[in-house]
Amino acid sequence: MSAEEGPRPPHPSLRSGRDPGRGRTIATVCLSGTLEDKIVAAAGAGFDGIEVFEPDLVASPWSPAELAARCADLGLSIDLYQPFRDLDSTDPARFARNLRRLERKFDVMAGLGVDTVLVCSSVADDAVDDPDLLAEQLAAAAARAGERGLRIAYEALAWGRHVSTWEGSWDAVRRAGSPALGLCLDSFHVLSRGGDPAGFAQVPADKLFFLQLADAPRLAMDVLQWSRHHRLFPGQGAFDLPGFLGHVRAAGYTGPLSLEVFNDVYRQADPARTAVDAMRSLQWLEEARAVGGQESGRSVPPPAPALSGYSFTELAVDGVSGPQVAGVLAALGFTHTGQHRSKPVQLWEQGSARVLLNASVVRPAAAGVASVAALGLESADPPRSARRAGAMSAPVLPRSRGAAEADLAAVAAPDGTQVFFTRTGPDGWPADFLPTGATAGPGSGLTGVDHVGLTQPFDAFDEAGLFYRAVLGLEPQEVTELAAPFGLVRTRAVTGPDRAVRLALSVAVLRRGGWAPAVPEPQYVAFATDDIVATARALRAAGAPLLGMPANYVDDLAARFDLPDDLLAAVREHGLMYEEDAHGGYLHLATEVLGDRVFFEVVQRIGGYDGYGSADAPVRMAAHRRRRQAARADAHAR
Amino acid sequence: MSAEEGPRPPHPSLRSGRDPGRGRTIATVCLSGTLEDKIVAAAGAGFDGIEVFEPDLVASPWSPAELAARCADLGLSIDLYQPFRDLDSTDPARFARNLRRLERKFDVMAGLGVDTVLVCSSVADDAVDDPDLLAEQLAAAAARAGERGLRIAYEALAWGRHVSTWEGSWDAVRRAGSPALGLCLDSFHVLSRGGDPAGFAQVPADKLFFLQLADAPRLAMDVLQWSRHHRLFPGQGAFDLPGFLGHVRAAGYTGPLSLEVFNDVYRQADPARTAVDAMRSLQWLEEARAVGGQESGRSVPPPAPALSGYSFTELAVDGVSGPQVAGVLAALGFTHTGQHRSKPVQLWEQGSARVLLNASVVRPAAAGVASVAALGLESADPPRSARRAGAMSAPVLPRSRGAAEADLAAVAAPDGTQVFFTRTGPDGWPADFLPTGATAGPGSGLTGVDHVGLTQPFDAFDEAGLFYRAVLGLEPQEVTELAAPFGLVRTRAVTGPDRAVRLALSVAVLRRGGWAPAVPEPQYVAFATDDIVATARALRAAGAPLLGMPANYVDDLAARFDLPDDLLAAVREHGLMYEEDAHGGYLHLATEVLGDRVFFEVVQRIGGYDGYGSADAPVRMAAHRRRRQAARADAHAR
Repeated sequence: MSAEEGPRPPHPSLRSGRDPGRGRTIATVCLSGTLEDKIVAAAGAGFDGIEVFEPDLVASPWSPAELAARCADLGLSIDLYQPFRDLDSTDPARFARNLRRLERKFDVMAGLGVDTVLVCSSVADDAVDDPDLLAEQLAAAAARAGERGLRIAYEALAWGRHVSTWEGSWDAVRRAGSPALGLCLDSFHVLSRGGDPAGFAQVPADKLFFLQLADAPRLAMDVLQWSRHHRLFPGQGAFDLPGFLGHVRAAGYTGPLSLEVFNDVYRQADPARTAVDAMRSLQWLEEARAVGGQESGRSVPPPAPALSGYSFTELAVDGVSGPQVAGVLAALGFTHTGQHRSKPVQLWEQGSARVLLNASVVRPAAAGVASVAALGLESADPPRSARRAGAMSAPVLPRSRGAAEADLAAVAAPDGTQVFFTRTGPDGWPADFLPTGATAGPGSGLTGVDHVGLTQPFDAFDEAGLFYRAVLGLEPQEVTELAAPFGLVRTRAVTGPDRAVRLALSVAVLRRGGWAPAVPEPQYVAFATDDIVATARALRAAGAPLLGMPANYVDDLAARFDLPDDLLAAVREHGLMYEEDAHGGYLHLATEVLGDRVFFEVVQRIGGYDGYGSADAPVRMAAHRRRRQAARADAHAR
Repeated sequence: MSAEEGPRPPHPSLRSGRDPGRGRTIATVCLSGTLEDKIVAAAGAGFDGIEVFEPDLVASPWSPAELAARCADLGLSIDLYQPFRDLDSTDPARFARNLRRLERKFDVMAGLGVDTVLVCSSVADDAVDDPDLLAEQLAAAAARAGERGLRIAYEALAWGRHVSTWEGSWDAVRRAGSPALGLCLDSFHVLSRGGDPAGFAQVPADKLFFLQLADAPRLAMDVLQWSRHHRLFPGQGAFDLPGFLGHVRAAGYTGPLSLEVFNDVYRQADPARTAVDAMRSLQWLEEARAVGGQESGRSVPPPAPALSGYSFTELAVDGVSGPQVAGVLAALGFTHTGQHRSKPVQLWEQGSARVLLNASVVRPAAAGVASVAALGLESADPPRSARRAGAMSAPVLPRSRGAAEADLAAVAAPDGTQVFFTRTGPDGWPADFLPTGATAGPGSGLTGVDHVGLTQPFDAFDEAGLFYRAVLGLEPQEVTELAAPFGLVRTRAVTGPDRAVRLALSVAVLRRGGWAPAVPEPQYVAFATDDIVATARALRAAGAPLLGMPANYVDDLAARFDLPDDLLAAVREHGLMYEEDAHGGYLHLATEVLGDRVFFEVVQRIGGYDGYGSADAPVRMAAHRRRRQAARADAHAR
């Protein structure tokens, strides 16, 4: 192993004057659009460098030197040229042609001013199976690179013909013994095959030329398809990226952290938004890897303060939907206890559940719409929550504040929902509300907010999971899929460690077309009760618009579960829904949709049930659809 | 095997008075929407019966008896209730509960008036592994079914815990020896595991209770995910459904052909349209299985007449785009040779390539748009082509015909393109055009139409492949995917046996959102030449608006292929594109996009190249995008 023990060449980021270990890089293949769109997006999100994905350059009218100049103008370094495929060959004539092809790419690299090319293990029929011949061919290529001051980072594709593990790629690099040849480690290729990154420690640091990072969901599919369509940014999937990065850093890698994510959704989504999402993934990863700043020389975001629950949920209403929602809140047992000092905002309370009805939110939607506009989350340190959000690339919202009003910090979530960091107390946000004089009645048994259900824009689902994880410190849970009447729906909850905050995020698995209902799936607020039958009885007595469930649904429950007769009767009478998981049961009910976009649920968790009733969602959606159709028919008849 | 040799009970379709072997059935899970949407769609497409998918009934407000009455009103029988999951159990108490659950479903079946329930092999942890115990439990369940005049069709799920092959399900049914227990054969479960349907011959005919049909693309993924998301209707995928059906019929199955397709796209697409597509798949399958009517007692569609090429391609234009396209046709070497007798339609000719510019097509699109409106396909027997199209559920278009004009039969393809069946000759459609007096010039070497590229609506891609297969007798080719600037694109060609007719169908892999260009990918007409360099020279001399290719693209070609220097120089000079497949090479060029929706290509096939240049498409798309942006910038500057 003498070849690896010579003096270590400086990393290019050092040569270019950049501090080591501080580079955040993104491969252009991660982003949609033309090359111009991509570099503008990467720079806008604060990346330091890019990997140039060859097909992006091939389709560009810019010469390599022009691209380099534009990147320099934007403050972006070019850290890698990739990929070069199928270098080695058992056919000497073809290998000679491959070397000529490589030389032409060296010409391109000279124009770009990049010194490292990614060569991935061959997938061709003529790939070399003989370790010595492979090392010989890699060494020959590296010699040519070295002559031009360039170097080759060799990467094992998980589906490479003969080299498909990082150990295989390291064996070839070690045998070749060329100073201009080293490894590119890619988290997807290693972790998708169950590889062990602890072994990186055996590789001399100066052979760790480059690091590509991607997360992924656990999928049982061909690894090539998995890689090409379903990669995710770190923190969005199921891989242990912090652990992986820890092993890479422990092995002495000092180069940039570079994202290489092939993902069908990101390929067609707004690249400016994707780039911010990508940046947040690295911020999250750096923090998860080493709280306290060992990973990065940058300023360290303050840790996320604990969130102890919902202080309020705010609905945007108008002159039509406002009275309708207020009437339903009253029927749910809420009391209108406060009126905002300077804005047309009502405060409704029951137990620790508080709902704001805000008639001042300007929305382009049609008249009569009500929607979830904001969530108030109770933070142990609201200013720190806001600082952390800003440090995690969350858009912090400007606030207009009246005299004697609380200074509420808020950020915009990916779906546009405003998230306020609050501290509920005498000098907190409730002080902005003047008492109406109404005193809270006995209520209907609602004790607080269990969770909020937020349907996400199609492109924002994975972004949203990471947003809540990185910005708020919530943990994404398992992804579930269900067959709803108008197409598949994917749901993923993000939760606080003690479940004081739960959000159920959902999205259509395929973006809907003309046949889908014109109105998107409504958002909802789920209130908790300890006795849903008593609550349901109170709600019905008060005339709350509860959604009925079909008799077939109850018959099916009776067939599937051993429910006591009185409970089954209550389920049938009150339109309850029921499901179980391994830990317990879940009783819930829904109101009709109010203002076209929102409804309320009442839920009772029994035992350790940890879900969100998503198995019942198709039945609930079909019932909502029937109610909507019936309401339209009524409106036409009138 | 004595139990199977008793007298065969009549199939329910016989008992209900329906002829055997004539039933066409569709499972409600194939279709989007509520149960009401589904049965209306199924009846509208001409199905005889449905399988009731339990979750659809559970979500419905109709009682089983109400559903039965509505189906009867629509002329639909209910042929199967499905699925019943996880019947057997190693835990006697749980098996007893499962039997009670089954009895409740028998109650539902009584309401529906259906006599067969699908029981699928268990996937539960407590599934029975002992063949005798499994047979005993199935027999116990069948005994209860028999007491109520019902029967159980047992199906092996491909991912069943212990029973995952049809042989395994047959072993259990045989051992059980119950008259009320038989098999449900499902083509997906058999063919996805590489099962051999020839073995069905060993099963007594009276044990073949039900047949479910689904096709699928070949995918390397977990079979459960493959089944739940990617099934297709027969004729759309890679399975040999005609062969499968042949074996099932040879074994004596006399029941209906029933479709059970779980597909993400169909789950969210217009069910009326999906149902027609589904019906066409059975019509195709019945014909492919047995030309001449052995399969079906229905009237047999006439075989598809041979198509010998394109008689014309018709573009819809308006007062703005018409002169623009005409100018480009002139620059491409076409001559305006004819004018329609009664409509504002121009005929342009070069070699055997004919283009119609039709200014009479009413389109809602914005002014200045040009688009592919119709294809004329030269048929050996146009009236028979039209009769076949009608028999294959294609929408036959009404025609208004002027005096002395040809009677042109046309059908609408799934993307709305009109397909005319023509016979070009003195008494054919050209007689509708009065000569302009212009005589064709020397042209630019275009000899005819090589292919037409048609971007499909998102929901219509698989439907389109089957449409061209079943209606026109074209053969679908392999599906390819490419990474285009604004997202992945899937392409599939349909071709005549001698390639005289080729259509390249493409679609976005994910339906695009707000970031995608507002205008969909343009359609195109590709003209053939035998010498593209000479043609390109002529086009440039005539001022045709050829699309330039970036220098990086040509540099990449030079690195990848051993092209002669003079060809490479021509590629660089004329903006040619080049690619290879295993059979030969392909040189092609594109014009700029005309009228926002269409462009022309010129192509030269070398050797046996059989593709459509799709590897070059991303570069071409990026170039088109740049031209569009530049044109907009020009327009703003003016």
